[in-house]
Amino acid sequence: MNFSHPIRVYFADTDAGGVVYHASYLDFMERARAEWLRAMGFSNSGLIGEFGIVFVVREVNVTYYRPARLDDLLDIGVEIESVGRSQVVVKQKIMRQDAEIAAGKIHLVCARMEPFKPVSIPELIRSKLENRT
Amino acid sequence: MNFSHPIRVYFADTDAGGVVYHASYLDFMERARAEWLRAMGFSNSGLIGEFGIVFVVREVNVTYYRPARLDDLLDIGVEIESVGRSQVVVKQKIMRQDAEIAAGKIHLVCARMEPFKPVSIPELIRSKLENRT
Amino acid sequence: MNFSHPIRVYFADTDAGGVVYHASYLDFMERARAEWLRAMGFSNSGLIGEFGIVFVVREVNVTYYRPARLDDLLDIGVEIESVGRSQVVVKQKIMRQDAEIAAGKIHLVCARMEPFKPVSIPELIRSKLENRT
Amino acid sequence: MNFSHPIRVYFADTDAGGVVYHASYLDFMERARAEWLRAMGFSNSGLIGEFGIVFVVREVNVTYYRPARLDDLLDIGVEIESVGRSQVVVKQKIMRQDAEIAAGKIHLVCARMEPFKPVSIPELIRSKLENRT
Repeated sequence: MNFSHPIRVYFADTDAGGVVYHASYLDFMERARAEWLRAMGFSNSGLIGEFGIVFVVREVNVTYYRPARLDDLLDIGVEIESVGRSQVVVKQKIMRQDAEIAAGKIHLVCARMEPFKPVSIPELIRSKLENRT
Repeated sequence: MNFSHPIRVYFADTDAGGVVYHASYLDFMERARAEWLRAMGFSNSGLIGEFGIVFVVREVNVTYYRPARLDDLLDIGVEIESVGRSQVVVKQKIMRQDAEIAAGKIHLVCARMEPFKPVSIPELIRSKLENRT
Repeated sequence: MNFSHPIRVYFADTDAGGVVYHASYLDFMERARAEWLRAMGFSNSGLIGEFGIVFVVREVNVTYYRPARLDDLLDIGVEIESVGRSQVVVKQKIMRQDAEIAAGKIHLVCARMEPFKPVSIPELIRSKLENRT
Repeated sequence: MNFSHPIRVYFADTDAGGVVYHASYLDFMERARAEWLRAMGFSNSGLIGEFGIVFVVREVNVTYYRPARLDDLLDIGVEIESVGRSQVVVKQKIMRQDAEIAAGKIHLVCARMEPFKPVSIPELIRSKLENRT
């Protein structure tokens, strides 16, 4: 994947099964998407403050291949699958060195804040996203 | 759905977008599955302690229809889609009265604890699950 | 304590130590305070929407006596220690039947929303709180 | 403080008040303590695997001075206050550049795993901790 972000596993991310709790991977993916936005020159707080928009999660599909554990160092990849008028679909991969831990596809919708309503992705952002495709 | 469990939304479940954080719905679904197991006479800690097994999440697919908010009272439904030798697929729905908030399909695999390895669902549990189909 | 709220322990609340994660008890206490407010006729979303205020956590002191585990059913008590002009101090206790799991003291400050600034507790709310002392 | 660890604030760490959720700071402090252990040559999973011990949180005292927000970059400091036979008390500070966000004192007890029972801190670890005092 053309962007990846390292994340260490701490106690808060694990559960009594002794491994990373399944919903924690969604947090990891969200953190990686935030850093990926930042690498393009944007931030979630900036999108809210300057554009009045937020990328809302519309759909998640995650497959879990093997468990990650306390103190593992993971790499969370982000890659664009498609960019529409107001929707972006990203593929994400969670790796521990060469071992694939989980993979996901996340559908995001560009929405204006409160009440949420889909809007076109601002041109400035769209062009950066399309360069990443 | 033939089983549902009520859940109130608290601050911990929300995010700075003013609505329920997308991964919190996976927690809600997990809580409802735990109560659904309990309604059949089982518990996660009992499965670990007595059978040495755990139902591991293998895949999640969740679609978000509209946001839930602080203090909302939600109903989290659980319904079996299929029961295999070691796999169970459940459908889940998150409702706020008549409004559908989110819907998901969760693939669970019966595994023995550490290291996780798929095993057959114990007969006692399978028969209860099949009665629920 | 004159108010208590039952909470079941699920996987999300536990960690790889096999017990409830220490910060999860703050979530449990927060849920119990929300239900205690509700029992007095208020709600956090109502305080924000109608009064433009929120009770902000200013200080927490929690002592952990023994671990709680997956599937435990806990009772989270709430009791007022003192009510000031803009501050409320509550004591909280986490019990599993007769066993004390944890105890805490939480200092809350009544603040108006964004930017947070301490304000007097609205009279309607103060009188209910003082009745609870 | 003689050790500090940077942490970025993501959506998962915030709540509907628009700021970082109060219990998230305990997660931040726990992550910083894990990295501080690592800087001394240890890890939580190593302590469990090699020594059969874990540092259990016995008491937390946290004061919140000002709210942190989405995308803030925080520094989480760790400093030893005292080392006893089986107990370690650490002071922690959460800073956003020069602004103090929160400060805490955390009492940890060295315990053997399941059932938790306080034990002496292994000599190898104690000597490193005392060097840090």
